[in-house]
Amino acid sequence: MLEKLKIRPLVKEDKQAIMQILRDTPEFKPAEVVVAEEVLDNYLQDPSGSGYYTFVAELTNVIARGKAPKQSRSDIVGYICYGPTPLTEGTWDIYWIAVDSKEKGKGIGSALLTFAENRIKEAGGRLILIETSSRPEYKGTINFYRFHGYELVSKILDFYTSGDDKLTFQKRNESGKSKEV
Amino acid sequence: MLEKLKIRPLVKEDKQAIMQILRDTPEFKPAEVVVAEEVLDNYLQDPSGSGYYTFVAELTNVIARGKAPKQSRSDIVGYICYGPTPLTEGTWDIYWIAVDSKEKGKGIGSALLTFAENRIKEAGGRLILIETSSRPEYKGTINFYRFHGYELVSKILDFYTSGDDKLTFQKRNESGKSKEV
Repeated sequence: MLEKLKIRPLVKEDKQAIMQILRDTPEFKPAEVVVAEEVLDNYLQDPSGSGYYTFVAELTNVIARGKAPKQSRSDIVGYICYGPTPLTEGTWDIYWIAVDSKEKGKGIGSALLTFAENRIKEAGGRLILIETSSRPEYKGTINFYRFHGYELVSKILDFYTSGDDKLTFQKRNESGKSKEV
Repeated sequence: MLEKLKIRPLVKEDKQAIMQILRDTPEFKPAEVVVAEEVLDNYLQDPSGSGYYTFVAELTNVIARGKAPKQSRSDIVGYICYGPTPLTEGTWDIYWIAVDSKEKGKGIGSALLTFAENRIKEAGGRLILIETSSRPEYKGTINFYRFHGYELVSKILDFYTSGDDKLTFQKRNESGKSKEV
């Protein structure tokens, strides 16, 4: 069995698969899933005018069985949503990233994040920000960001609720920065 | 001459006066005025569903001249826009506050801010956040927030552009906090 990962823009037909991944992600509260859906709908209504960029990760399994014709099945296994931060020059936010929990450990999240980082760099982005929660459930997520070179730059205590702080991680793009000079 | 200050919800007829104040405020960049207008329009389209609370300060001059009938003139001299921060419990953002530059020094900004703080407290708000820029033009604004008890809790370097940081000020409402226990 051969697995191939493809990253491509989100289309309407992907929405239900993404919603299922969001609902199956234990870190996301129901209200967060509602907001994620609003953002997906905004994007799908007007992909180029929404201020969001949304890409899905599609995993294809190619099964070759003797002389039988090749069978292949494609599944949506994750997505990333990012965009330029309003009222800034060269700052971008990564708003959502989610991977099917059954497919974790295959590097799908890393592939999505690296893909977005490269696109942001191409667009002249200087600074990438990711906001997340200090809840223990996010420890793996935070380790994932740190592994990818993100550093904590802001912590607002009790932001989400009492005891649940907002953490902001950043990654600076030095080549983007030098473009401004 | 007698001056009376009244704070009341924004209505459609106030919009042009507020836009003029925004345009005449040197700290606001044109792109910021565009976003402020979008927020005003969102609020006016659906005041209770927009997620924003928008109030104007109206100054009335009553001029009594001998036996002539009293003359009075009302002017919109400022506004404040605030709302609950999405995906939080009890955190509120003050998004915009502006005062007619000809009327500065009369306590209009303080009256608007105190008004919003009291409404947020009544709604059970725990935490008030205000984001602002580190540009030198905002020094007076920052002093104004500090005078009203706000403290700096976050600084994201180069957020708006290279050399222009995002500062976040907070004020905690202890009585709101104790409600949660």
